Amino acid sequence: MKTDIEIAQESVMMPIKEVAESYGISEDDLELYGKYKTKLTDDLWKKVKDKKDGRLVLVTAINPTPAGEGKTTTSIGLADALTRLGYKTMIALREPSLGPCFGIKGGAAGGGYAQVVPMEDLNLHFTGDFHAITSANNLLAALLDNHIQQGNALGIDTRQILWKRCLDMNDRVLRNIVVGLGAKADGVVREDHFVITVASEIMAILCLANDMKDLKERLGKIIVAYNYAGEPVTAKDLNAVGAMAALLKDAIKPNMIQTLEHTGALVHGGPFANIAHGCNSVRATKTALKLADITITEAGFGADLGAEKFFDIKCRMADLKPDAVVLVATVRALKYNGGVPKTDLAEENLDALKKGIVNLEKHIENIQKFGVPVVVTLNSFVTDTEAEYEFIRTFCERRGCEFALSEVWAKGGEGGQALAEKVLKTLEYKESNYHPLYPDDMSLKNKIETIAGEIYGADGVTYAPAAQKALAQIEQMGFGNFPICMAKTQYSLSDDQKKLGRPTGFKINVRDAYVSAGAGFVVVLTGAIMTMPGLPKKPAADGIDVTDDGVITGLF
Amino acid sequence: MKTDIEIAQESVMMPIKEVAESYGISEDDLELYGKYKTKLTDDLWKKVKDKKDGRLVLVTAINPTPAGEGKTTTSIGLADALTRLGYKTMIALREPSLGPCFGIKGGAAGGGYAQVVPMEDLNLHFTGDFHAITSANNLLAALLDNHIQQGNALGIDTRQILWKRCLDMNDRVLRNIVVGLGAKADGVVREDHFVITVASEIMAILCLANDMKDLKERLGKIIVAYNYAGEPVTAKDLNAVGAMAALLKDAIKPNMIQTLEHTGALVHGGPFANIAHGCNSVRATKTALKLADITITEAGFGADLGAEKFFDIKCRMADLKPDAVVLVATVRALKYNGGVPKTDLAEENLDALKKGIVNLEKHIENIQKFGVPVVVTLNSFVTDTEAEYEFIRTFCERRGCEFALSEVWAKGGEGGQALAEKVLKTLEYKESNYHPLYPDDMSLKNKIETIAGEIYGADGVTYAPAAQKALAQIEQMGFGNFPICMAKTQYSLSDDQKKLGRPTGFKINVRDAYVSAGAGFVVVLTGAIMTMPGLPKKPAADGIDVTDDGVITGLF
Repeated sequence: MKTDIEIAQESVMMPIKEVAESYGISEDDLELYGKYKTKLTDDLWKKVKDKKDGRLVLVTAINPTPAGEGKTTTSIGLADALTRLGYKTMIALREPSLGPCFGIKGGAAGGGYAQVVPMEDLNLHFTGDFHAITSANNLLAALLDNHIQQGNALGIDTRQILWKRCLDMNDRVLRNIVVGLGAKADGVVREDHFVITVASEIMAILCLANDMKDLKERLGKIIVAYNYAGEPVTAKDLNAVGAMAALLKDAIKPNMIQTLEHTGALVHGGPFANIAHGCNSVRATKTALKLADITITEAGFGADLGAEKFFDIKCRMADLKPDAVVLVATVRALKYNGGVPKTDLAEENLDALKKGIVNLEKHIENIQKFGVPVVVTLNSFVTDTEAEYEFIRTFCERRGCEFALSEVWAKGGEGGQALAEKVLKTLEYKESNYHPLYPDDMSLKNKIETIAGEIYGADGVTYAPAAQKALAQIEQMGFGNFPICMAKTQYSLSDDQKKLGRPTGFKINVRDAYVSAGAGFVVVLTGAIMTMPGLPKKPAADGIDVTDDGVITGLF
Repeated sequence: MKTDIEIAQESVMMPIKEVAESYGISEDDLELYGKYKTKLTDDLWKKVKDKKDGRLVLVTAINPTPAGEGKTTTSIGLADALTRLGYKTMIALREPSLGPCFGIKGGAAGGGYAQVVPMEDLNLHFTGDFHAITSANNLLAALLDNHIQQGNALGIDTRQILWKRCLDMNDRVLRNIVVGLGAKADGVVREDHFVITVASEIMAILCLANDMKDLKERLGKIIVAYNYAGEPVTAKDLNAVGAMAALLKDAIKPNMIQTLEHTGALVHGGPFANIAHGCNSVRATKTALKLADITITEAGFGADLGAEKFFDIKCRMADLKPDAVVLVATVRALKYNGGVPKTDLAEENLDALKKGIVNLEKHIENIQKFGVPVVVTLNSFVTDTEAEYEFIRTFCERRGCEFALSEVWAKGGEGGQALAEKVLKTLEYKESNYHPLYPDDMSLKNKIETIAGEIYGADGVTYAPAAQKALAQIEQMGFGNFPICMAKTQYSLSDDQKKLGRPTGFKINVRDAYVSAGAGFVVVLTGAIMTMPGLPKKPAADGIDVTDDGVITGLF
């Protein structure tokens, strides 16, 4: 069987300017990065921004196994299938993070015959967006510590510094560090922390900003520390905004590449799906809506996190109106939710499937709460059986839900035609009445309790004292109208990753909360959140190489 | 008076593919980064590598004032002047470091009407080469600490780790840090250090590697630590080479941009000029030699450091044969070397000039020791007087040295024609008999003493005990045949920055030494070397901004 990178390298890409041309984009509006990658200029946006939007379809998933359920692969295959059926379709995806490529996870360019290419470039430096974010993040940190070193006119309390340095690398020893050791000229000693670049608030800001003006306003609002009086100190107070914006001047422009079947893909931005909202950039999604009849996008983790944040944060802020949701399940994940251990998922087990399908049921109900019609799809695996498929199909149909098997991993767009037809039918016949789950002017606690009750199925919410205090302070600072960005395990609807299926009789335990004032949401922590991954015993880096002729091998 | 960025932004650039075409490069051999930047493919190198080399001219300088003497500006203006005179000329320069752009120094794209453009891109992320080096450097660090965390099979002594993390940022608090704090899962606690990216050995390696094969071999030789038995542990031992090379796959390809007058400029690589060799990449210089009749290149700091390393490290390793040297002086720097304080350099002072001109004299003699003919040029300032010019002109002519005034800052290529004519005359009539200063098989101490005596004019060399031990160990490990890379102040021929002019009766004091086994040289430290700069009280970042339409202001 061919590996993803072998399939990708054997494919014959179209020059990206020809792909762009097929969407009516002239070469003048491209900033090419080699022959197969391009950024789209601001001028293009100005030309298309008053056009009518196409239809918007979100791809999300049930609670996954640790291996993931193939949202990106499904998004790509579905778009290729729609293209085959004659619809002008575009994909809007997140950029992969460099760090995990060398760890366990590998890249994120889809899989099998449903990939975006060039996958090596996408998984490595791509067009440098993440490097630009890393630089802007670390410039702000350097300016902050320099301000303290040069006299600390703002009275920054070094015990209350919130801003962290970042690297796009899995590097556990940087989680907790002490900086500023040495002599007087080497800075003020303090505890510090690095996060991975996708966890930087600048990543979330870049993805939510409408344009350069909005970007700068948001950057200025970032709270980097508190002063000795307990008041917030912002990036604007440090006079850091202009230089950071200069570093992000190109990163804000959407990137375009193509699928193996030459469908256009805007791959832009990639905020963490736990402490941030886990969606590609607003700018890319809006551009796709102007250029194509149908835009396929996705959001991180399962629907309890990804879809909820897509609806309540991204769509709310960007005034997007999604028309349909594709909910990806796998037989494996349903059995996993039914209690089957990871090692036994390859065997037929209808009892476990019956037990686990309540997870799918809950996600269907949840998406309906946002007023958006849902199509369920099964991302097929070779170990699946006909009996298992039949059971799931019947289950969906009895709930008035469209259902289709997806074989895009093995067959590309051809394997997505059944799904594409159900999506088209849904777009044609089912009306979307999208609305966010809660209004802006609800209190922060009420918002949290609404998400916990309506989406997670919890009986209530408990707050640790730190969380109580933090939420009160955030409202007092004037951020009470922000939406909530929940940080919770992706493996369960509850905050306990061992509670699979459709748990009941549990409470959500809020440990702490903080405001991302630039991004514009309040992060609510329900457990320990890892913002700097580590490398495993045998890192993926071990298997990566490049030939003397510059061909990369071993990337996945 | 217009600022550099205003002049640059008002210029009308040619599409870079047209500039490339003027050197016979077809669009197929370009990897465009937007319309005005491109990388040159490996295929281009294969096509041209057997062509005859053009002539190679090095631009270097006398010992400078802290403001620098305009080597880059002179290189660019000279190339533009040669282009005007009908010679196919190309420039090979270093890429600027991002960190200093936000500190005191600003960028490094030349100045006035002798600039390379787009200067904003060059001074910010450019084509991402430095970000790729940062990533490769930090991947190696992460793999090293992960190896220790996962059981430390190689027995790495955490007290003897040499490899440092890096960022392209002026960030003093990262000079001395403690990493790995927290819980068991957060790594092993140890002291660590960040350097600026240009100080990474990977930067030096990238600039000295002939091709991907050579790059991988050099990466593998990097000594990252010693084990408990005192033996070196290399990047190859950590199985890091393939993944690092994958990150550097594009960074190894030279970048091409243009001057304000559309002369081609290969701007590629930028190793620190103190702990590394301070020259642009071998790959870029060799490519320029194949594409143009005359290639103008430069090396960091004054000729005692930059030219010596260019000759003894770069030319030796890459088998380059320089044909002429342009030695840049300024009236200001000569007066500074004559003892005039920085604040009084604007006033005519022939006595100080007479006192300081011995510095120029010594550099002329030094360059002649490498067998290469020299042309002296004065980079003119508005405060210079005719009497001062006349004195310097006569001084040079009496030493059989070509001399020309350069007015490229104010007039571009037109202001460099007098210099260009002298360079052409030198290339036509004076033979270069380039040879390095010392042979490979001389002992390390003898090499150091040869440089100190012949180039610096020292009476001898003293070695601290640490240096004695290090040099013996380096020879014992089999690196005795490497050239020496001196780390010394750039402000004096001696190792004391206060000894200006042409000091005599001093010794060079060697504090320590280490081997850069991948780069292939032995670094000899003669003072405290700063490998991570800090930001000043009022950083340049303060003045940088970007308009809502994406135009950068305040960068210099």
